[in-house]
Amino acid sequence: MAEQRLPVPRLRGVSREQFMEHLYPQRKPLVLEGLDLGSCTSKWTVDYLSQVGGTKEVKIHVAAVAQMDFISKNFVYRTLPFNKLVQRAAEETHKEFFISQDERYYLRSLGEDPRKVMDNFLIQVTGKKRITLFSPRDAQYLYLSGSKSEVLNIDSPDLDKYPLFPKARRYECSLEAGDVLFIPALWFHNVVSEEFGVGVNVFLKHLPSECYDTTDTYGNKDPVAASRAMQILDRALKTLAELPEEYRDFYARQMVLRIQDKAYSKNSE
Amino acid sequence: MAEQRLPVPRLRGVSREQFMEHLYPQRKPLVLEGLDLGSCTSKWTVDYLSQVGGTKEVKIHVAAVAQMDFISKNFVYRTLPFNKLVQRAAEETHKEFFISQDERYYLRSLGEDPRKVMDNFLIQVTGKKRITLFSPRDAQYLYLSGSKSEVLNIDSPDLDKYPLFPKARRYECSLEAGDVLFIPALWFHNVVSEEFGVGVNVFLKHLPSECYDTTDTYGNKDPVAASRAMQILDRALKTLAELPEEYRDFYARQMVLRIQDKAYSKNSE
Repeated sequence: MAEQRLPVPRLRGVSREQFMEHLYPQRKPLVLEGLDLGSCTSKWTVDYLSQVGGTKEVKIHVAAVAQMDFISKNFVYRTLPFNKLVQRAAEETHKEFFISQDERYYLRSLGEDPRKVMDNFLIQVTGKKRITLFSPRDAQYLYLSGSKSEVLNIDSPDLDKYPLFPKARRYECSLEAGDVLFIPALWFHNVVSEEFGVGVNVFLKHLPSECYDTTDTYGNKDPVAASRAMQILDRALKTLAELPEEYRDFYARQMVLRIQDKAYSKNSE
Repeated sequence: MAEQRLPVPRLRGVSREQFMEHLYPQRKPLVLEGLDLGSCTSKWTVDYLSQVGGTKEVKIHVAAVAQMDFISKNFVYRTLPFNKLVQRAAEETHKEFFISQDERYYLRSLGEDPRKVMDNFLIQVTGKKRITLFSPRDAQYLYLSGSKSEVLNIDSPDLDKYPLFPKARRYECSLEAGDVLFIPALWFHNVVSEEFGVGVNVFLKHLPSECYDTTDTYGNKDPVAASRAMQILDRALKTLAELPEEYRDFYARQMVLRIQDKAYSKNSE
C-alpha cells in the first residue's frame, strides 16, 4: 500500500481576479507566493510583538510534544502575559516552564480548528510550518472523531489502529514567512511548526449565507442542510433497527448503494 | 481476483427438530437429503403428469437459451395444454416449436422469483438442477436491478460490465430428485436446469407476520420497516441535494460511515 504524496502547487504573482476566476473555483489547496502583505513579515519580530502586545494575560496550550492532540488533549491550559509568552515561545529550551524544558506553546486566538465548512487563507507572517492536507474525499481513511482525525503522528502512524490511513493521499507544503495557503472548506490539515512564528487565518464563507447555521460564529458547524440530512438519516436507521440483524445489514447495504448512486460525485478526483 | 467457490453442505437424516433448533437459526443454505417426500419422486413421470394434468391451458415462458433473463426478458409467453407442455419440455429437440428446435420451457405456477424476503425450501421432485447461491452480504457485487442480479451468465460473466462480480462468493450445489434445498430469505440464486424436472417451492415467513406488507401475497416485497427506512433515506438525500456537489459528496460519505457504524453486522461472515 504505497502512500501517495503530492506537492501543493505554488504560484507567484497571482492577481485577485485571476485567483477568484480561475483558481478558487477548482477547490484545491494552493500556496500563493509574493502577495503584498504589508510590513508585518519583517516587522513582527519577537521584540516588536513583546513590546506592542504588552502584559495582557492570554490563555495558552502547553504541551510536552510538538503534535498537540485536540481529541485526547495532551496539553494543559495555562495563562501568561502576552509578552512573556512570545519570549518563551521563541526559546529553544526554557529556564522557566510549566511541564518540561522543551515544552511547546500555542496561542489560539479564536474558535476551534479545523473550521471545516469555511474556506481558509492561512497567512504565514513569520516562522515556518510544514502542512499536510487531506482531501474530503479521503475522509474515510482519516479515522475522524467529529471533524478531526485521530491520526496525529501522520509520519509514522499506528497501523494496527489505523490500517487504512496510508490510503489517504497527502498534499504537502512548507510555508515560510510571506506565503499564503488556500485551504478550501472541508479539507483536513495537519500542522507542524518548525520554528516560532505567527500565522493569521482569514476565513470566508464559500456557501451563500443562508446555508450556515445562524448560531455558528466560527464557521465550524455543518451546513444546515447537512445537519438536517444526518438527522433524517438517524430516523431511517432507527426504523431499520426494528428488523433482525441479517435484514438490517442487508438493507443498510442497499441504503449505502442508494447514497453512492444519488449523492456521490461522479468524477473520481 | 480469485473466485471463491464453496459447496453448499449436504446433510442426510436430519429431523425436523434438529433442523429447527440447530440449522435453521444459522441462516445458511443447506441441502437436505433423504427426507420422506412420499411417492412423488418416483410417481411424477412425464406420462403420469401428462395424464393427471390433462389439457388445461397454461401460460409458459419459452426461451431459445437455458438462462432466462427476468430483467431484459429474453423469453416469450405462450400458451399450451398442460399435457402437451410436459411432453415438449421432456424432449431434447422439438418437432413442434415456437421459436427454435431446442427452445426451453418454464412453467412458473405462482408469483415472481426470487421471493427474497421469505425463507424457501426448494424440493426437487424429479430432474436435476445446478444451483448457485449468493449471500446477501455480497449484494454489492451482484449488479442488482431491483431484487435481481443483472449477471445471468455467471460462468463467464462480462467483466467489462460487471468487474466486481468475481468478488461474490459462490455457494454451489446440484440437486437431484429427492433433495431439498433450504434457501434463507435474502439469498440470491441462479438456477440451471440440466434436465426436465419438477420443483416445488415452499415459502415460509421468517419474520413475525406484522413485519410484512399486508398486500404482499408472495413475500416478494421488502419488510415494512425496510421500505420505510428507504423512503426516509430518500428524504435525507433530497435535503442533501440542496448543497453544492463537493459538500454533497462529503456529507454523503459521512452518511455512509454512519450507516456502516450503526447498522452493519459486526461479524464479517
